[in-house]
Amino acid sequence: MAKSRTTRPKLRNSILPKVGGKSARREPAEVLAPLVIRMAGYAESQLEQSITAAVRRNAAKAIAVAGNDSVLDDLQTRINREAQQLLIDQRPDQADLNQILGAMRIAGDLERIGDYAANIAKRVRPLAEFSDLPQIGAVSRMGRLVRDLLSSVVTAYSRNDLAGAIEAWHRDEDLDDLYTSLHREVLTYMMEDPRNITGYIHILFIAKNVERIGDHATNIAEMVHLIVTGEPFNKVRPTGDDTSDQLIRPADRDKPAGAND
Amino acid sequence: MAKSRTTRPKLRNSILPKVGGKSARREPAEVLAPLVIRMAGYAESQLEQSITAAVRRNAAKAIAVAGNDSVLDDLQTRINREAQQLLIDQRPDQADLNQILGAMRIAGDLERIGDYAANIAKRVRPLAEFSDLPQIGAVSRMGRLVRDLLSSVVTAYSRNDLAGAIEAWHRDEDLDDLYTSLHREVLTYMMEDPRNITGYIHILFIAKNVERIGDHATNIAEMVHLIVTGEPFNKVRPTGDDTSDQLIRPADRDKPAGAND
Repeated sequence: MAKSRTTRPKLRNSILPKVGGKSARREPAEVLAPLVIRMAGYAESQLEQSITAAVRRNAAKAIAVAGNDSVLDDLQTRINREAQQLLIDQRPDQADLNQILGAMRIAGDLERIGDYAANIAKRVRPLAEFSDLPQIGAVSRMGRLVRDLLSSVVTAYSRNDLAGAIEAWHRDEDLDDLYTSLHREVLTYMMEDPRNITGYIHILFIAKNVERIGDHATNIAEMVHLIVTGEPFNKVRPTGDDTSDQLIRPADRDKPAGAND
Repeated sequence: MAKSRTTRPKLRNSILPKVGGKSARREPAEVLAPLVIRMAGYAESQLEQSITAAVRRNAAKAIAVAGNDSVLDDLQTRINREAQQLLIDQRPDQADLNQILGAMRIAGDLERIGDYAANIAKRVRPLAEFSDLPQIGAVSRMGRLVRDLLSSVVTAYSRNDLAGAIEAWHRDEDLDDLYTSLHREVLTYMMEDPRNITGYIHILFIAKNVERIGDHATNIAEMVHLIVTGEPFNKVRPTGDDTSDQLIRPADRDKPAGAND
């Protein structure tokens, strides 16, 4: 695939103080993007560690993740403070607003991603107790997919790369499909092995968290669209969770997937 | 309990055009609050219908809710548009920003509440197929609690009622406790009755959605605090879900609750 086109943020002609302004103009993207990208890097690291801990069912590794969550909260607070200062000082036009409100929205999404990563990590300790649970391959596949997805949308934000954002946005569908099939697989395991139901429930909620992280990553892609084009991203996608009207009875496990849809 | 003190939004001394402004000053609260309150009323109605459908396992009633979600999206779009116009036109000070960004945040929370209500409704149809599932009393108790909670925070927003917002915020703890005990109860049912696991999973996710709606209601309470006092609400509360490190084995059901914590 050809490399996506990279658009640099537009540069203002002048950085002289505005008449009546108390200081030189501060370009919203220059103030906010480095903070957002730093927060994104931190969220990516949290996500990676929690996924690795979940796939390996490594309780010790998981403990580190759950404790680091406040760093993301602090970065979000700082982004919101800078953003509000810009709104007060800079007399923003619509393009500035898209940058400023977009940064706040992305920080909100990253904070939620951190929460979901922490919740995944928290579930690894009890999950590790169920040593006889089968490995669910879809968990590690979902983990790889969601990490790639987050990485792509963060790169797209840092480069104002519209094509990259749209491409990543579409990839969330694969994540949703994986979640739906994992949900079905885990439910049939539960019916066959009810003693380990609590363990399977943790796997189910871990996968649900990964699916939600994918939704927040697509929100970030939509913000990149808004920032680069000035227009909201209007493609309507169904929400990721196709399991809400799922109906599985024990006998279904011998039918091909989708047989009762 | 004594009625909470009611604080009216402060009124500006002048509604004359600002020098250089192209129009008379529009008070952010006067522009945004009616839209937010209308959106809140709609979200309350969606929530009420979805909870009623879930408690009665009434699939026909549930279908109506799932289709109404776009009204909330449209109201949110309108609130965001008005808010951005205010940010551009009004040279907001910090108090204005709290009103404007607070309204956008609350609209975001209400939109999510609508999504969760729609997801609850969507799960009622497959749930209704499991006619032999026992009634779980905690579902209707959680439903009542969350409706009261949302109603209280919306009232607090519409009256700038700080005491009411704080009181409601604390009530979310009861919802979290109910969710934790429901989770435990449903898991033991699942172990005894694995044929109906899919039905129980829907109950579990319905309860999880209600718990998340409670979190969004407390976000709204925190925004009321910010709008009324100018300060962010800083009380740290653990997240609502105490089930993430829950470990239940079949034998546990005869022990008193919490015995393995």
